[in-house]
Amino acid sequence: MEDWSHCLDVAVQIALRAGQVVQSAVKQEKQVSSKSTPTDLVTETDHQVEELIISTLREKYPTHRFIGEESSAAGVKCELTDDPTWIIDPIDGTCNFVHSFPMVAVSIGFAVRKELELGVIYHCFDGTLYTARKGHGAFCNGVRLQVSKEKDVSKALILTEIGAKRDPATLDIFLGNMKKLLSAPTHGVRIIGSSTLALCHIASGAAEAYYQYGLHCWDIAAAAVIIREAGGHVMDTTGGPLDLMSRRVVAAGTREIADCVVKQLQPINYGRDDTDPDDLA
Amino acid sequence: MEDWSHCLDVAVQIALRAGQVVQSAVKQEKQVSSKSTPTDLVTETDHQVEELIISTLREKYPTHRFIGEESSAAGVKCELTDDPTWIIDPIDGTCNFVHSFPMVAVSIGFAVRKELELGVIYHCFDGTLYTARKGHGAFCNGVRLQVSKEKDVSKALILTEIGAKRDPATLDIFLGNMKKLLSAPTHGVRIIGSSTLALCHIASGAAEAYYQYGLHCWDIAAAAVIIREAGGHVMDTTGGPLDLMSRRVVAAGTREIADCVVKQLQPINYGRDDTDPDDLA
Repeated sequence: MEDWSHCLDVAVQIALRAGQVVQSAVKQEKQVSSKSTPTDLVTETDHQVEELIISTLREKYPTHRFIGEESSAAGVKCELTDDPTWIIDPIDGTCNFVHSFPMVAVSIGFAVRKELELGVIYHCFDGTLYTARKGHGAFCNGVRLQVSKEKDVSKALILTEIGAKRDPATLDIFLGNMKKLLSAPTHGVRIIGSSTLALCHIASGAAEAYYQYGLHCWDIAAAAVIIREAGGHVMDTTGGPLDLMSRRVVAAGTREIADCVVKQLQPINYGRDDTDPDDLA
Repeated sequence: MEDWSHCLDVAVQIALRAGQVVQSAVKQEKQVSSKSTPTDLVTETDHQVEELIISTLREKYPTHRFIGEESSAAGVKCELTDDPTWIIDPIDGTCNFVHSFPMVAVSIGFAVRKELELGVIYHCFDGTLYTARKGHGAFCNGVRLQVSKEKDVSKALILTEIGAKRDPATLDIFLGNMKKLLSAPTHGVRIIGSSTLALCHIASGAAEAYYQYGLHCWDIAAAAVIIREAGGHVMDTTGGPLDLMSRRVVAAGTREIADCVVKQLQPINYGRDDTDPDDLA
């Protein structure tokens, strides 16, 4: 097994630098435009931070490949090969960032032979740093993370995100899923506006499960390593193995809670990251 | 106009002390029980912190009256008279607290002759302190707060909370309101699990509007002063004047956004704090 610890160190340094750029930009006027839908926002900071992360990593690792949110939106093919590949979300929670709503993160994942090897997520508002390397545990500011061991869904706190598609039919399925999970019953549902930070809350045990349709590989890559290394489960919304490009995920502290969530979900079709590049909603 | 600045100083000191108790308790095993509904949770820390706040204030101000979440749940009449009255939520976001989900606050409001005079809200996880006194501005850690000036609802971020009633009919109205606000369209809807901190995000300009059915006077009292002093609007869900005991609220940075939200809402009946003491859901 190859030792990717040097990559983790580099990723941490870059995430902290990128986070500082985001922190400074929060206080300034933002130039906002929309991508696939009017609610799928992007700012010049998203581009600037992705460029910073990729150029720094490329200098260190000239043979590695890159998948980034903004490069993909600009038409670069989103393809996971066997090559060492960095999977980057420069600003997860761009809508929050636009509003200075304090849930925004930089997410850097790394895969080799299509296996996720490490993840670094930096919460730009409170400075929390989540890190994990496969087989070496997950940490928050250096403290070991452990998922919730709760198996009873009626005591579970569930997290989700709305997704960029807001047509009536999609909203009906989204809200129907939320109703089923609230009626399971569960303790409640939260929507914080950052998939990546929501997934970090699963890793830290602050919530029992997360589900979403419509997120992207760069929202999941780093977080999946962190959750698994904290003892949790990350899977497809059908309960099968995670497909990083499928734009859907269920994550949970225990398999029991994950199974309960999977049973409630009616799917929303968002296409795939690797074969539907135009359907970036 | 009487000078209540000494009350603000006292409230800040007590909120900080109460917040420390909550912070220590987060890390420990919690004894959780439920109140009106299985999802309406309470812990021994809620009782302990309310007792700490009320006993300290009573010692300083023996003639003042008190309205507190846990005293009301225990049967103490929830009545706002002309007397100086402290309105207290010892732990806003008890469900979050139970899960160590990092959105939990201590809220202390103060009214005289039924007018809200000051508010102090302490975010127990990140240590943010929100304060305001009528006519003297609102502050976050000493920095002046200013609501969002956005008037276009299509650029608004909207916050809400689910409420304790989870029967199918109530959920249908709740989710129907959410659908209408997502379709307005708006930038999105967030649910963080703490009414008080959500309202603080309106004061800080991080979101444009908040609405909820089913919250209590102790969720609104402190936050209403903070939002108004930050230049915002706090009103009934019909658009009329706020009725602190009505268990419903709309808050917004601008009147234009508030009016748009008001128009979308179908009401959920939760009774009143002052006349339906058994209906504490």
